[in-house]
Amino acid sequence: MLDYKLLFALAAVVEQAGFERAALVLGLSQSAVSQRVKLLEARVGEPVLVRATPPQPTALGRRLLSHVQQVRLLERDLQGQVPALDDGGPPERLRISINADSLATWWAPAVADFCAGQRVLLDLVVEDQEVGFNRMRAGEVAASVCAAERPVAGARSVPLGAMRYRALASPGFIARHFPNGVTTAALARSPAVVFGPDDFLQHRYLESLGVAGAFAHHLCPSSEGFVRLTSAGLGWGLVPELQVSGELARGELVELLPERPVDVPLYWHYWRNGGELLRELTGQLVRAAEQLLVRE
Amino acid sequence: MLDYKLLFALAAVVEQAGFERAALVLGLSQSAVSQRVKLLEARVGEPVLVRATPPQPTALGRRLLSHVQQVRLLERDLQGQVPALDDGGPPERLRISINADSLATWWAPAVADFCAGQRVLLDLVVEDQEVGFNRMRAGEVAASVCAAERPVAGARSVPLGAMRYRALASPGFIARHFPNGVTTAALARSPAVVFGPDDFLQHRYLESLGVAGAFAHHLCPSSEGFVRLTSAGLGWGLVPELQVSGELARGELVELLPERPVDVPLYWHYWRNGGELLRELTGQLVRAAEQLLVRE
Repeated sequence: MLDYKLLFALAAVVEQAGFERAALVLGLSQSAVSQRVKLLEARVGEPVLVRATPPQPTALGRRLLSHVQQVRLLERDLQGQVPALDDGGPPERLRISINADSLATWWAPAVADFCAGQRVLLDLVVEDQEVGFNRMRAGEVAASVCAAERPVAGARSVPLGAMRYRALASPGFIARHFPNGVTTAALARSPAVVFGPDDFLQHRYLESLGVAGAFAHHLCPSSEGFVRLTSAGLGWGLVPELQVSGELARGELVELLPERPVDVPLYWHYWRNGGELLRELTGQLVRAAEQLLVRE
Repeated sequence: MLDYKLLFALAAVVEQAGFERAALVLGLSQSAVSQRVKLLEARVGEPVLVRATPPQPTALGRRLLSHVQQVRLLERDLQGQVPALDDGGPPERLRISINADSLATWWAPAVADFCAGQRVLLDLVVEDQEVGFNRMRAGEVAASVCAAERPVAGARSVPLGAMRYRALASPGFIARHFPNGVTTAALARSPAVVFGPDDFLQHRYLESLGVAGAFAHHLCPSSEGFVRLTSAGLGWGLVPELQVSGELARGELVELLPERPVDVPLYWHYWRNGGELLRELTGQLVRAAEQLLVRE
C-alpha cells in the first residue's frame, strides 16, 4: 500500500509551484512537506522532484502524480455517493494535453460551463496534435485532444470531428510573391510558416500540389503568433478556419487556392478508469464538438 | 579548425526536419548526409542528434548549431562587402526566443518588413519571459525577447518598453463570483488562470492586494488559450492590453479593479558578434517597440 500522505505532499508542491505554498495548502510547516517528499524518494529509491524554481517532477514523479490524479477522481465519485465523506477540499484538477489550435479556438467555449458547474480546474499541456498522444501513453495526463485515433491500453478514444485548415496569406504577400496568380512553382519558392518540427501540414499541402522536397519556412510554435506572422505578410500557412473568421471576412487573410481545405480529424482520449467526472466531460465535449468542428 | 561540411550537414538535417529533405537541399545522397553527421559525432565524441522523427539536436548539437548560425551571419556580412562571394544560397535563419505574449501581439508587425526586405526566416522558440534568457545563456538562440535586463557574456541588452497587463474576467464570471463587487477576499476565492509554473503575474497581483498564499487556478500555457479561457468565464487573469483591445471595447472582458495595470518591462538581448543583420534588426525593433509598447 502506498503512503498517500507522501504522494499528496508531492502533488501539492508541484501544483502550488513551491514548498512554501504547498505547506500553506496542506496546513503543514515547510520542513514537514520537504520531509515527506524526501521520505517518498527514499521509498521509491530515486528523485521524484528536480529542486528548481519552481520544482519540476522527474519522469517517475510524473507517473506518481498521474496516479494521484486517478485516485482523486475515484475519490470524488465516492464522495458523490457517500456525501459524508465530502471534506469540501479544493476543486479537482484535470491534466489534459491538447493541440494548440484547439486551445486557440473551440476548447474554452466547449468546456466552460462544465468546469464552472463541476468546480474543475484545468491543467493544460499544449502539444502538437501528432504527439500529445505520447503524454497519454506515458500516463502523464488524464485525457488528450489529438490526431491519433487508436487509444493506448487502459484508455478510450472518441472522434470529435475535424479542424478545417485553409492555406492563407495576406493580400500584400500575395501581391509580392504571386503577381501572376498563385502557381505551384511560385508557391514552392515563397516562404511558408510552419508551427514546429512536428508540423507537416504545409509539407503535405505542397505535396498534394505535386511539389516535393524542401521549402523555405519560418518556425513559429504559437497559434496566435502563426496568425500574426501570416497576417503581417511574413509567409503563407495553413490556419484553422475557426481562428480567423474575422480576418477572412475583412480580407486581411485570403485563401491561396480557393476551396482546397485540409481537414485534420481530432480524437478525445481518456482513461477508462478515470471516474464519473471524465465520462461526463466526454459527453459534454462530444456534444459541443458537433457544433464547432467539421463532421465527415 | 572545424569541418564546416559536417556542421552544415547537421544544420540541414535539423532545419529540414529529416535526412531526406536535408539531402535534397545539400544536393547529396541521404547516406552521404548520414555519414557526415556520424563523422561529426566521431570527432566530438558524443551524439549530436537524437534519431527521432523529426531528428532533434542533443545539447551539444544545439551548441554546434548556434555556432553555425553565428558563422552564417558573419558570412552574410562578408558577402555584402564582397558580392562575388554571394552564392545566392537560402535565406538566413534567425533563431530567437520570445515570450508568448509578445508573439501574440506586437512582434509580427514590428519585424515583418525587415524580414521580407532582408530575406530572413525566423526560427522562433516560445519561452516564458522569465526563462527565455536561459536559452541565450546556453547559446541556443541568437537573440531573445525577455524580462531579464542584464545581458549574458558576449551579448548586449536594450530596453524595448513594457507590456501592460490588466486583470480581466468575463461579465458572467464577475456576476457569479463577485455579486457584491470585487473584494480582495472574493478574488482570493475565485479561480484564476495562470500561464504555467513560471508565471507569477497573478500571484504578484494578489500579493499587491494583500492576499498571500495559494489560490485555485487553471494552468494554460498558450496566450490565445488564456484569452479564450478568460472570455469563456473559466477564471480571471492578467492579459496584455494589446491582445484584447477588441474584447475590452465590446465589453466581453472587464477589468476587475479599474486602473490597476501591471507593467512588465521587456528587453532585447542579442549576440554582440552576430553581424550587421542582428544590429539592423535591433534598430528596427527599438523603433517599432516605441510605438507598440508602454514607455516608462
